[in-house]
Amino acid sequence: MERVYNFSSGPAALPQEVLAQAQEEMLNWQGCGMSVMEMSHRGKEFTGIAAQAESDLRELLQIPANYKVLFLQGGASSQFAMAPMNLLRGKQRADYVNTGQWSKKAIKEAQRYCTVNVAASSAADNFSSTPPQAQWRLDPQAAYVHYTPNETIGGVEFHWTPDTGRVPLVADMSSNILSRPVDVGRYGLIYAGAQKNIGPAGLTLVIVRDDLLGETLPGTPTLFDYKTHADNGSMYNTPPTYAMYIAGLVFKWLKHLGGIAEIEWRNIEKATRLYAAIDGSDFYHCSTAKSDRSRMNVPFALKDAALDEAFLKQAKASGLVQLKGHRSVGGMRASIYNAMPLSGVDALLEFMRAFEKTHG
Amino acid sequence: MERVYNFSSGPAALPQEVLAQAQEEMLNWQGCGMSVMEMSHRGKEFTGIAAQAESDLRELLQIPANYKVLFLQGGASSQFAMAPMNLLRGKQRADYVNTGQWSKKAIKEAQRYCTVNVAASSAADNFSSTPPQAQWRLDPQAAYVHYTPNETIGGVEFHWTPDTGRVPLVADMSSNILSRPVDVGRYGLIYAGAQKNIGPAGLTLVIVRDDLLGETLPGTPTLFDYKTHADNGSMYNTPPTYAMYIAGLVFKWLKHLGGIAEIEWRNIEKATRLYAAIDGSDFYHCSTAKSDRSRMNVPFALKDAALDEAFLKQAKASGLVQLKGHRSVGGMRASIYNAMPLSGVDALLEFMRAFEKTHG
Repeated sequence: MERVYNFSSGPAALPQEVLAQAQEEMLNWQGCGMSVMEMSHRGKEFTGIAAQAESDLRELLQIPANYKVLFLQGGASSQFAMAPMNLLRGKQRADYVNTGQWSKKAIKEAQRYCTVNVAASSAADNFSSTPPQAQWRLDPQAAYVHYTPNETIGGVEFHWTPDTGRVPLVADMSSNILSRPVDVGRYGLIYAGAQKNIGPAGLTLVIVRDDLLGETLPGTPTLFDYKTHADNGSMYNTPPTYAMYIAGLVFKWLKHLGGIAEIEWRNIEKATRLYAAIDGSDFYHCSTAKSDRSRMNVPFALKDAALDEAFLKQAKASGLVQLKGHRSVGGMRASIYNAMPLSGVDALLEFMRAFEKTHG
Repeated sequence: MERVYNFSSGPAALPQEVLAQAQEEMLNWQGCGMSVMEMSHRGKEFTGIAAQAESDLRELLQIPANYKVLFLQGGASSQFAMAPMNLLRGKQRADYVNTGQWSKKAIKEAQRYCTVNVAASSAADNFSSTPPQAQWRLDPQAAYVHYTPNETIGGVEFHWTPDTGRVPLVADMSSNILSRPVDVGRYGLIYAGAQKNIGPAGLTLVIVRDDLLGETLPGTPTLFDYKTHADNGSMYNTPPTYAMYIAGLVFKWLKHLGGIAEIEWRNIEKATRLYAAIDGSDFYHCSTAKSDRSRMNVPFALKDAALDEAFLKQAKASGLVQLKGHRSVGGMRASIYNAMPLSGVDALLEFMRAFEKTHG
């Protein structure tokens, strides 16, 4: 089978140009005689790769100078503990907004370290929307406010930035970082697992305001202290070097494309076409609130769930893979992160129309 | 420059055959149309890759059925905390053997969680030997005994397995795992960062006896609980999928070579040739105790440190790179892990002889 269009929610498709360059350089990076995988993380070749990746990321997201960029391991699931361990800073309480499965996981882990106030929740409408800020009941004693700007399972995305005043805002941006502009200065902490819009699984990006560092909970492992990594340029221990290299190639790819403005336009276009086709059909259905629909993850159902298996099988035969919805909601889900080209969405739409014609 | 001989202490050289296969499969793994980097960790392609890697590793190391194999993130530095957090199990004390910089790091982190009894130390001879077991003063109340079978900086290796009776033995095997046979059944816990003998940085291997799981310190992050990963086949969260794939290729490479017996023979041969040349020369010098010399990391000094720079520069010009000794000890260090072929050591020896002839 030739290259497919891969709609996985993560690990997800990477830009083909990035993979082609990685392939080309696999045994010998820029004539140095080594694979990037084989380089000492303290050698000049790799420190150059790491510095370039950070610099390109800072440029893409316009990260202010008082924010540290950390390349860590452990995924968002580790951040669920690291956020409270680092940001409680003597306080006992934190605000969390619950918009679905990822929020819930963050809340559950935070509850091991502090009292969590669920300041807002969309549980009542089965996580098919985001709660308007007017409904948030923020705790003035909270050490920080945590939310999940995009939920991959419900397919819900915040198209606005919460205002939490002087209380640091914390975001798990795993599934929509680099897909749209973000005003980093409005956040205390942003974290993201790499495996959707950044690079391979095993790399976790952290962007943290530097005045929040240095006061961890007793018992925090040294590697769970942001300051450990901030003080050592993410090289306190061996970082996930190859994943950082791939992330750097993705950042370069984004810059060449035209940066965040260009990728946002493409993401809007892809999502608009897909939702329009679903809404314009009686055969497909999407139950997410229109104003809160994710540009990254598009869950949809067939009018007859008995057709799901045939849909998935025929889609795969057409080179459209990993469209199965999350087991907790069923149906279909098309994850269309940055690396999914417009042509991939168009191919999916063509397949959906043909399938509807046959089975509708 | 063509491919070089890379003597880095880690991340380190990988078998060229492994890199070539990864290159071949980069955009399209076995005709599935995706890179391994792009696969969902829960899809059948990747779960197959993961299962095969575990099965090959179990075969290579003859891991008994009552041991869990975990593919984690965070490196040995995370294990320095995870070991006490998981293995103290209500006890307050642990024994540590101090044979150098890695032991010291493990001790320092453990001291945050318990009282550490340094049961033995080679500090008195500047970490150039391993302390004989007769000198160990084990604490009968210790929850476990931790040691570092190979120290990369001092170039010291245990060529024997400590006997700790019923107290679980814990080993940081980062730098010599898979280089020689190991009787896993004599250990409670073995851990290893991947970036020397397993695969790319960002993957950490844990082998743990299953009766030791399930009783962590209060406040242990969910991701620092071995049981979290053991109960979910290392898929509680997204594992470092691409690094696991490369590790799997390395395991296959080892099997095809003839397994641990064959690689041990090669490692003995490489180390023997290198130490013999050093000992047979007045120009080069190695101060490690002969009985405790590492087969993996060979530190040596030139008789005149003023020649170090010329040595490194000319070695590099000859395609022999990353030979600089650790900054804490100076001089040279040749790391000759599994992936370093005999021809690499022979090329180094030829260069050393020529350099001595010119500068001796």
